[in-house]
Amino acid sequence: MNRIALTLSAVVLFLLCIPGVYAEEKDKASSSAPLSEGTKACLDCHKDLHPGLVRDWLASRHAQVVPGVAIKKAEMERRISAKSIPEALQSVAVGCYECHTLNPAAHKDNFEHAGYKINVVVSPNDCRTCHSIEAEQYSESTKAYALANLDNNPVFKTLVETIDGSKGLKNKKLVTSKPSDTTKNDTCYACHGTEVVVKGFKTVSTDVGDMQFPELLNWPNQGVGRINPDGSFGACTSCHPRHRFAISVARKPYTCSQCHVEPDVPAWNVYRESKHGNIFFSVEREWAFENVPWVPGRDFTAPTCATCHNSLLSTADGTTIAERNHNFGSRPWARIFGLIYAHPQPKSGKTYLIKNKDGLPLPTTFAGELASDYLIDKEEQIKRLGRMKRICQSCHASGFTDGHFTKFAASIEEADQMVKAATLLLQSAWDAGLADKSNPFDEAIEQKWVKQWLFYANSVRFGSAMMGPGYTTFEHGWWDLTNNLAEMTDLIKLEKGKGK
Amino acid sequence: MNRIALTLSAVVLFLLCIPGVYAEEKDKASSSAPLSEGTKACLDCHKDLHPGLVRDWLASRHAQVVPGVAIKKAEMERRISAKSIPEALQSVAVGCYECHTLNPAAHKDNFEHAGYKINVVVSPNDCRTCHSIEAEQYSESTKAYALANLDNNPVFKTLVETIDGSKGLKNKKLVTSKPSDTTKNDTCYACHGTEVVVKGFKTVSTDVGDMQFPELLNWPNQGVGRINPDGSFGACTSCHPRHRFAISVARKPYTCSQCHVEPDVPAWNVYRESKHGNIFFSVEREWAFENVPWVPGRDFTAPTCATCHNSLLSTADGTTIAERNHNFGSRPWARIFGLIYAHPQPKSGKTYLIKNKDGLPLPTTFAGELASDYLIDKEEQIKRLGRMKRICQSCHASGFTDGHFTKFAASIEEADQMVKAATLLLQSAWDAGLADKSNPFDEAIEQKWVKQWLFYANSVRFGSAMMGPGYTTFEHGWWDLTNNLAEMTDLIKLEKGKGK
Amino acid sequence: MNRIALTLSAVVLFLLCIPGVYAEEKDKASSSAPLSEGTKACLDCHKDLHPGLVRDWLASRHAQVVPGVAIKKAEMERRISAKSIPEALQSVAVGCYECHTLNPAAHKDNFEHAGYKINVVVSPNDCRTCHSIEAEQYSESTKAYALANLDNNPVFKTLVETIDGSKGLKNKKLVTSKPSDTTKNDTCYACHGTEVVVKGFKTVSTDVGDMQFPELLNWPNQGVGRINPDGSFGACTSCHPRHRFAISVARKPYTCSQCHVEPDVPAWNVYRESKHGNIFFSVEREWAFENVPWVPGRDFTAPTCATCHNSLLSTADGTTIAERNHNFGSRPWARIFGLIYAHPQPKSGKTYLIKNKDGLPLPTTFAGELASDYLIDKEEQIKRLGRMKRICQSCHASGFTDGHFTKFAASIEEADQMVKAATLLLQSAWDAGLADKSNPFDEAIEQKWVKQWLFYANSVRFGSAMMGPGYTTFEHGWWDLTNNLAEMTDLIKLEKGKGK
Repeated sequence: MNRIALTLSAVVLFLLCIPGVYAEEKDKASSSAPLSEGTKACLDCHKDLHPGLVRDWLASRHAQVVPGVAIKKAEMERRISAKSIPEALQSVAVGCYECHTLNPAAHKDNFEHAGYKINVVVSPNDCRTCHSIEAEQYSESTKAYALANLDNNPVFKTLVETIDGSKGLKNKKLVTSKPSDTTKNDTCYACHGTEVVVKGFKTVSTDVGDMQFPELLNWPNQGVGRINPDGSFGACTSCHPRHRFAISVARKPYTCSQCHVEPDVPAWNVYRESKHGNIFFSVEREWAFENVPWVPGRDFTAPTCATCHNSLLSTADGTTIAERNHNFGSRPWARIFGLIYAHPQPKSGKTYLIKNKDGLPLPTTFAGELASDYLIDKEEQIKRLGRMKRICQSCHASGFTDGHFTKFAASIEEADQMVKAATLLLQSAWDAGLADKSNPFDEAIEQKWVKQWLFYANSVRFGSAMMGPGYTTFEHGWWDLTNNLAEMTDLIKLEKGKGK
Repeated sequence: MNRIALTLSAVVLFLLCIPGVYAEEKDKASSSAPLSEGTKACLDCHKDLHPGLVRDWLASRHAQVVPGVAIKKAEMERRISAKSIPEALQSVAVGCYECHTLNPAAHKDNFEHAGYKINVVVSPNDCRTCHSIEAEQYSESTKAYALANLDNNPVFKTLVETIDGSKGLKNKKLVTSKPSDTTKNDTCYACHGTEVVVKGFKTVSTDVGDMQFPELLNWPNQGVGRINPDGSFGACTSCHPRHRFAISVARKPYTCSQCHVEPDVPAWNVYRESKHGNIFFSVEREWAFENVPWVPGRDFTAPTCATCHNSLLSTADGTTIAERNHNFGSRPWARIFGLIYAHPQPKSGKTYLIKNKDGLPLPTTFAGELASDYLIDKEEQIKRLGRMKRICQSCHASGFTDGHFTKFAASIEEADQMVKAATLLLQSAWDAGLADKSNPFDEAIEQKWVKQWLFYANSVRFGSAMMGPGYTTFEHGWWDLTNNLAEMTDLIKLEKGKGK
Repeated sequence: MNRIALTLSAVVLFLLCIPGVYAEEKDKASSSAPLSEGTKACLDCHKDLHPGLVRDWLASRHAQVVPGVAIKKAEMERRISAKSIPEALQSVAVGCYECHTLNPAAHKDNFEHAGYKINVVVSPNDCRTCHSIEAEQYSESTKAYALANLDNNPVFKTLVETIDGSKGLKNKKLVTSKPSDTTKNDTCYACHGTEVVVKGFKTVSTDVGDMQFPELLNWPNQGVGRINPDGSFGACTSCHPRHRFAISVARKPYTCSQCHVEPDVPAWNVYRESKHGNIFFSVEREWAFENVPWVPGRDFTAPTCATCHNSLLSTADGTTIAERNHNFGSRPWARIFGLIYAHPQPKSGKTYLIKNKDGLPLPTTFAGELASDYLIDKEEQIKRLGRMKRICQSCHASGFTDGHFTKFAASIEEADQMVKAATLLLQSAWDAGLADKSNPFDEAIEQKWVKQWLFYANSVRFGSAMMGPGYTTFEHGWWDLTNNLAEMTDLIKLEKGKGK
């Protein structure tokens, strides 16, 4: 009996000493689901070539549960949304071979590799095989068109080219070159996505002899609006990073923080300093990030980004609080990322199709008038606000929630008013010939105007939305909205004084 | 015997798989203490209406231990400071009913609700029932008067109105309106607190028919100087967030970070980059944040904000290192949050009562002279410094500690000197008519002066206090103190040049 | 049998309730290795005087494993690199006495203390006793000369004195004093290190009567280039903080983040927002930070700073991926911390010995020409790049890795181009007499030029290196590179306009 006691104690101690055994998802050195012959062949070489990648996949749900089992779960708990799964995929782990060989005809990056036809890039259209609803929703979002919306919009294109263009001096005057692809890929396109183009093939000498691989331009990239070699838009790995694809990672705010970050989109920064963030960072280690559906109170006690913006939420007894949605613009009623003012969410993810009163593809004019035809109407806004409040009320009384949203609406309006004041100042500088409006982004006073809406008004809006007091006040908030107007005024005075 | 082994292994594995079981406080779906009839009635509806709120409370100590038991702990371990507890509260969990019905006569927000008389807002005066010493100490702190100290001080009031006032253009000149309540609540008052006012009652249609609720203005808010509907000051939930009220949350720096954050009070930012922060973030998961008293070395190996600023600390054998204190100004000897210079801690939490040589309610004049009558004296400063060093010496030798505080004192003095230089420059601009001193906060050069003390000198002081090298140097530190003076000088030169 | 079950369940529950038992390193209240008589004597007093310090040490490997055992581990797993260990140290814990009494003749801070001859400061030369290779490598790094490289380089010395010098007004003009030691220690030297000087001895009254201690100037400090009282350079505690010296702490990015932080060296900030950081923060609690060697995939699934820059990495079956190296400049091929341009890594850690074409100890001229004699050559760069790629390929395919480094190389070049444009603008201001080049750091336009390379170009380089999209774009990235040039242009126009 003592022996049993000792053995068990040893087992316990052993378990306690394995890092990761406490994790929501088990970390294993082998798959617990059967592997296809194709995947076995991949692993034969790649487990030695890229051990980190392979072991990351081994820790994934893809390596543990075969689709034929996963699809039989109760509807609320299902992680597969396709009505049916191709026969060949049903009873093997979702491995290298399964994902990297789908839809080969569409994939310009498909290539002959050790006897198999392999795609380099796995696209949302490939993931659609099992996750069809998510892929469909995503394809309607502004995220999917994040690159297209930059490139097809002359205003944004000018902004990108002004920022990213290399500068030099010619006759003592600054001149701007067209930006390089590498710099665009490193900056705007890092989040918005690149167009991954197959340039041709190149020969690489490897341990097992020379091999041919496709040569991809604008790669690597994991931007949300990436245009893939199969023509699809987006990158699921933006939020479900390679090769574990854990829902728990996507649900933590660190994922969103890569792009939604100060000074232009300070969502992460505001969350960090909010009461919700305070609680997340203090006790998140006790939460369950893996459960589907996700239950407020049981699984977590403060929301993360995903809670309010896309996860399927239910009560402990299975009543739906919010539907899952991968069209991330479908929950909010307002778009507080001001362009240049806050506005109702656009109806379509393709915002480059908008035409405002001035003929520009912007949701408002510079004077603030809405391009209403392209934006959701009041009724839809009210419906969405109601749905959002339902989420808040998991933890907050209705008076609390109503008070918050009333304040938020007023702050949006006042931040817009501060942008309007800057716009009028800029207009007066243009009118007086102190700046040249042909490019509204390339002179110091114009750049102050950009900061007013892109940095400071955005900070106030995000700070108000999620109750981050620093970002409404001294950190790019009302302090800067005010100081920036004083600096614009000063600059105009000085420019005028010198008789220009 | 094998069956026992298997059963136990299963138990172990089961325990290892429950998220949160490792947490300092157990997460449960039911209270382990008996509930009052009132609380049972509340839970009947609210467990479905606000499951997150209810389950957060269920995980709290309030739901696990009845006051009659808690009060009998050894003095050092007691979390209740009242000498006695009202009979009715002694043997039931501290539930919804217990907290939301206290002192109804004082509560303007009290209302008839499902047969009970309920307060919406639970105030420090209610928490005082069990936590009397903490409530008393807090009521003497500058935190309790954080709103009053803004509103009753004409200098600060002007600063708030200058920052928060909406701006527009009139005859091409900037004009500032009086700020809205919503913007003040979103910005300064988010941390300082709002005055929560009962405007009247409103009818809300709910699932169980129409109900009447008090309509609260300036709500929600959890600022430290909130004025509550019962006339009390403060919000315990600022640091002990709803509805778990965990001491472990209050002891983590994330809580303080909501308000004590760059650019004006970069305590959090400095801590994050300090060696103490380095250790906290690296190993805090091994620490015990729940123990009372809190034992350096055993419970943690680097301080958090609470360690140095308010927690009860003792050695493992029970010798007190520092007394608990909820008057947060009672430990430090100097106030490094410069207004506009560092100064000895004020004697009273009501700083609006200060009168300096210029007749203003500021701890120093603009020239730096102390309003000594209102500030602690040298003797008290020395006593406090000694007490603080005692805490440091839990982990550091006296030579280390002395060297640190000597450097810190010198840095405070030099940062003040850099503020003085900016003040003289501003004075010269005022004297030359380049700026108008009637409002010292509304012109660009004045705002540079504000940055000198509020952002840059503060960064140097906090950076020196907690050894964060970025904030003393390039991140709002000496670099900016220096650069800002150069920019002020340039601006004065340019303004003069244009013959104004 | 039931009793066994109960006992074991109790054991399990007990284990689950002890905070820290899950930690990679066990937290104990006593050493498990035998103690020397000297260390016992130290602990007798100091366990009460500095309980935090003592318990931190008790949790260390130094307190658990005697050197005689540690040195017998398989080579890849050894943490001791000395070929042999002095007899006296072999079979006792590495305690207070063992470390604080080494090489007394060299230690100017050695003093008689309770019958023992004690050094206050333990230096890299002392740690060398067991960790000889690490000490040797470190002694060749730029880190070891971080103070010397500032103090012996007139350009950097001028920058330090310009920033840190206290400013006052004299005849309405700004004048700068020589900076104090305390301010230098609080700022630049906090990271670079101070020269710790023994000024003399002082008497301190303690609980056990008056005692004499050495009086150290410029102490405390843990900067990487600290000059110690024994003449050695550096502080192992910079990264292995007192008194646990845990490898797990050094391997977490929080350690590096103390100094490698925005705005000048935004390595931490970029990591935080990178995909690697995203994964680290989301799942690091599952990783094993203690293992030697460190195995990608098994021990972690995304790199930290240490992974790429110094740790010994191997595959699970023991094939070396990268050698351990404490000369932190020995892995990278380029130095992207621009001075003022990016450049190949210097050959020697003593960069003050460099002489460029202009005779200055800088790796490039102001015009960008390399001081090639002092920098590694193309061949060495290619070798190092290959070694670095090997690390990336633990998780990434070669096409992914190659694409990344191609983009990175282009971004370095373009950031340098943007610095060049600012340098030309500054030169034109100097030429026109609008600024005085005798000190290139003390006027507003010169400080804009410093920001161009030290803040903005550095942000782009670090952001590109580690794929942090904010820092290449709006957070001190291309936006600021561009805006700063526009502001410099404006300033030159305005200065000229006023007829200076």
